[in-house]
Amino acid sequence: MKIEVVENVLKYNKDQADKNRNLFKNNNILVLNLLSSPGAGKTSLIIETIKRLKGMKDIGVIEGDISSTYDAEKIKKFTDNVVQINTGGTCHLNATMVEQAVSKMRTYHLDLILIENVGNLICPVGFDLGEDYKIVISSVNEGDDKPVKYPPVFIKSNLILLNKMDLIKISDFNQSFFDKKIGELNPRSEVIKLSCKTGIGLEKWVKWVLDRCKNKNDL
Amino acid sequence: MKIEVVENVLKYNKDQADKNRNLFKNNNILVLNLLSSPGAGKTSLIIETIKRLKGMKDIGVIEGDISSTYDAEKIKKFTDNVVQINTGGTCHLNATMVEQAVSKMRTYHLDLILIENVGNLICPVGFDLGEDYKIVISSVNEGDDKPVKYPPVFIKSNLILLNKMDLIKISDFNQSFFDKKIGELNPRSEVIKLSCKTGIGLEKWVKWVLDRCKNKNDL
Repeated sequence: MKIEVVENVLKYNKDQADKNRNLFKNNNILVLNLLSSPGAGKTSLIIETIKRLKGMKDIGVIEGDISSTYDAEKIKKFTDNVVQINTGGTCHLNATMVEQAVSKMRTYHLDLILIENVGNLICPVGFDLGEDYKIVISSVNEGDDKPVKYPPVFIKSNLILLNKMDLIKISDFNQSFFDKKIGELNPRSEVIKLSCKTGIGLEKWVKWVLDRCKNKNDL
Repeated sequence: MKIEVVENVLKYNKDQADKNRNLFKNNNILVLNLLSSPGAGKTSLIIETIKRLKGMKDIGVIEGDISSTYDAEKIKKFTDNVVQINTGGTCHLNATMVEQAVSKMRTYHLDLILIENVGNLICPVGFDLGEDYKIVISSVNEGDDKPVKYPPVFIKSNLILLNKMDLIKISDFNQSFFDKKIGELNPRSEVIKLSCKTGIGLEKWVKWVLDRCKNKNDL
């Protein structure tokens, strides 16, 4: 009798991620996977993005949390096309969870899906969801040493957002140290500095998103 | 032929944690396992604790990070009894890593070991290190909803520290909401509000530590 062994959970995840990617591509949907520590501002950024793209782009949101529907309820005030995934304790989303969430979404005419991953700067980066871009959100109050201490997420992300810039004057955050470390880890990745509170940088961020939507539709 | 299966990685960890616990008990060492998101202030709290207990208690520090010796180098300025664990990507410390770190420490005359776990509000809580107390550090700028979104760490911790209180006036942190949720999840756990920047609450925190050291020596 042969004993079957699942050789690689990541291989299984990759296969499902490829299926998701095909689905997104066939439907011309741009998919962004937002990664950060707890409390760095993922939900606020999603809300500000929905507000600014209202009437221009049709947006769906997937909310990932270990439990609760707290963030999905916040987002529900701005769009009804939001699905909450509760991982039941698991520290990251995987491609199967995203497939299940998408199956509960209205995808007809959808331009953009924003995935809020579980708040965790480590584990989610290893799990391909089939997204077009991984985006890490770091916040000023977490300190300038995050790229040094958590390199993988900064290496693997296509865009780095530095949020809560409104706090920079009252913090000891060393901007040039942060930029230098990002440059060493991921020289090709752009950094956008923003504050969801004051609106700094949000125009640049929205332009970044719109440029990708357009490129996607050009395919 | 029988195929051996490691039934439960947590069972293996628990056995090693029990060995650590015995070692700590036999040597009258109080061990605190500090848990938080990245950037909530674990390293700053350790430095402030060492400064305030200098000459009173002999302190060792175990620094957990996925890579780098960045935090251990900061701590080295205040004590030479610090060991860095690099988990090589793993998102939490386990009891075996702590055993190895302790074997490299000077334990003779040691009163207190502060373990800075990997910055992650989810995974570390499941791994017993043999510590006396788990302590979660939440920071004001992470938002008042952390107990709702990450319940396990708040349920399992023996003490909750709310750090960066200096930012509370310029944030929309709802103190009564936070306290209410903590009360629902873990009514027996004390909350100490502090700021490593201004010193608020540090006296209370140091007293909490000293009381436990004394209790331990009374055994």
